[in-house]
Amino acid sequence: MGSTTPDAGDQSRLRQLNERAVLAAVRSAGDVRVAQIVEQSGLGRTAVEEVLASLLTRRWLVEESPAIRGRGRPARSYRFRAEAGYVVGLDIGAFSVRGVLTDLNGQTLASQRQSVTPETPRPERLAAADEVVAACAREAGAEVWAVGVGTTGLVDAAGTVVRANAIPDWAGTDLAEYFGRSAPLVVVDNDSQLAALAEQRRGATDMVFLHAGRRTGLALVLDGQLRRGAYGAAADMSALRGVAWEVALEHLHAVVPAEIPEMDKAERAFAAARDGDRAAVNAVRKYARAMAVAAATAISIVDPRLLVLGGAFSQSADVLMEPLAAELDRLCPRVPELRASSLGALCVALGAASLALDAVDGRLLARSRGPLPTLAATSLDSPKR
Amino acid sequence: MGSTTPDAGDQSRLRQLNERAVLAAVRSAGDVRVAQIVEQSGLGRTAVEEVLASLLTRRWLVEESPAIRGRGRPARSYRFRAEAGYVVGLDIGAFSVRGVLTDLNGQTLASQRQSVTPETPRPERLAAADEVVAACAREAGAEVWAVGVGTTGLVDAAGTVVRANAIPDWAGTDLAEYFGRSAPLVVVDNDSQLAALAEQRRGATDMVFLHAGRRTGLALVLDGQLRRGAYGAAADMSALRGVAWEVALEHLHAVVPAEIPEMDKAERAFAAARDGDRAAVNAVRKYARAMAVAAATAISIVDPRLLVLGGAFSQSADVLMEPLAAELDRLCPRVPELRASSLGALCVALGAASLALDAVDGRLLARSRGPLPTLAATSLDSPKR
Repeated sequence: MGSTTPDAGDQSRLRQLNERAVLAAVRSAGDVRVAQIVEQSGLGRTAVEEVLASLLTRRWLVEESPAIRGRGRPARSYRFRAEAGYVVGLDIGAFSVRGVLTDLNGQTLASQRQSVTPETPRPERLAAADEVVAACAREAGAEVWAVGVGTTGLVDAAGTVVRANAIPDWAGTDLAEYFGRSAPLVVVDNDSQLAALAEQRRGATDMVFLHAGRRTGLALVLDGQLRRGAYGAAADMSALRGVAWEVALEHLHAVVPAEIPEMDKAERAFAAARDGDRAAVNAVRKYARAMAVAAATAISIVDPRLLVLGGAFSQSADVLMEPLAAELDRLCPRVPELRASSLGALCVALGAASLALDAVDGRLLARSRGPLPTLAATSLDSPKR
Repeated sequence: MGSTTPDAGDQSRLRQLNERAVLAAVRSAGDVRVAQIVEQSGLGRTAVEEVLASLLTRRWLVEESPAIRGRGRPARSYRFRAEAGYVVGLDIGAFSVRGVLTDLNGQTLASQRQSVTPETPRPERLAAADEVVAACAREAGAEVWAVGVGTTGLVDAAGTVVRANAIPDWAGTDLAEYFGRSAPLVVVDNDSQLAALAEQRRGATDMVFLHAGRRTGLALVLDGQLRRGAYGAAADMSALRGVAWEVALEHLHAVVPAEIPEMDKAERAFAAARDGDRAAVNAVRKYARAMAVAAATAISIVDPRLLVLGGAFSQSADVLMEPLAAELDRLCPRVPELRASSLGALCVALGAASLALDAVDGRLLARSRGPLPTLAATSLDSPKR
């Protein structure tokens, strides 16, 4: 502020607030005309038009060619340039590394996958993740602004894996630092938490999320917020007594021929159950029973409106949901609404992308952070405090 | 609005907002001068003085005689007239009915107690509660504006007891209707929830509350809010498997002579443990172990910053806390900070009073509810929508 008069400083702050109000109005509406922006932002028409011109110049908005309807000059309309930037959501697991590419509106544009095993050494697992990010960036034809990383185990606030039972050499990996080489912004969280975040963004405001796949976990969304816990350990199933989730998968694997690769076994068991194979139906029931004990504990404690069955096995909800519901009926005084996720095996990567988008918004669009920059692929670095 | 011009309507709404802003500023500050109110409320001095005069006339505020310091005319100061109204918080249990009287600032002015037994018939238990409310009202020398009721068991949103294991004939009691005869406003909730609310009002923002007394329960405060659950059943211990809380008290009772009345047995066991009696120390350890299993389950699910040991037994924290902490260490990967409540046996009644005060605030002080009434003992009925 040193060289500007107080008035100029006030004007500049006002302008920054106006820019954000207009940008928010356009972004939430999708495709809007000036009159609508005036109404939504609460600003005068002249102020809105000034800000629109400035945001167009700096490539935050695009002016759409209006469809000509009726008589007279059609009103100009604007949309947020969601393709101005891209993020990648990564899911690093024991058996696979998945990634999704989204634009700034969270629209999924591509997904990528690499196979690994629990024994894949750390450098190779990270290299597989690098390849997924690079493939996503190639799809975007641009640098990615942010990478969100979801991974199995407990992750600390700085983005380092603290504990990971499913991958022997994974604890101690500093994921925030590692992916800092690929993108200016990196955010990291536990996989089940991120899968729940993906559900929350699709409207689940009060839920226990049951992550069912080769990885198993619980997560909570309460009052519309992902509840991570005071130490990032909320709904940590490994801390629950009497919960047999660690052996739950064994029930499914036991009814599938030994030569089937481990990562395909569960889906084979579900397929056999779908075909009416009695042993497979029984195995699914035993798996559901083990999962229900963990879910019932969380339900008893938080009394949610909704239980979402998520993870890759949600794609087998047709055979899994009924035994799960029966077991919950037996265990819970009050069973919440049950729902299968539609996100399937991509749930963690999609949640990681949501977290990355939050980080981008926090950096670029939050209030009182100075003027919005002119956009280019590497714009994210410019608006430092 | 029918007969007033739009301008007069706007002015009247503005005045109502100003009244509430000034009232809130005075109430939160305790004892303030005009200059401070101007600063806190964001209103002009003239507007503040007008509103102050009006609030004085209508007996919401008191003008304090200023202490004379230094030279010149001392500035006038004002305080909220907390004694304008009173609420009673009730705790209806199997062995006792307790009540506290508070003013509008939540200051406790009196407490009352009546003994009952689990077998006391419903009409007599309600009559005992009536006597507690009446005794509190006599202390106030005024009608009470609101009664908050905490009771054992599950209570529905309308204020009827749905389930109560500790009192045979209690389920089905419509407490909201019953106490509606004693006060214009009645609010009802589960006892453990209200005890947790009392802790929340004293600063616990992220906690598992372990209610330890003749009644046993859990409650959650997350992100500063009491978490009741979607169906009022959050932290319902009776729904947890493998939790031996129902027999936990038996450990304490077993080491006390049979002729001691049941309601004094636990305290006698704690006293004996305090004196080093080996059997009593063991009994306390077994009791702590049973309570720890329930607490550990809630801790694993919500990962709180704090565990508060509350209820009447918190007064024996000197012998109870150490074995509880040892057992939690064994059961939880991460033990939160442990703290004993200072509210003791009054915790439920104090929480019920807090709930009653919230209801009074909601009725009287919420925004856009029309002008504030002139205060008298029965003022609570006047500001209807």
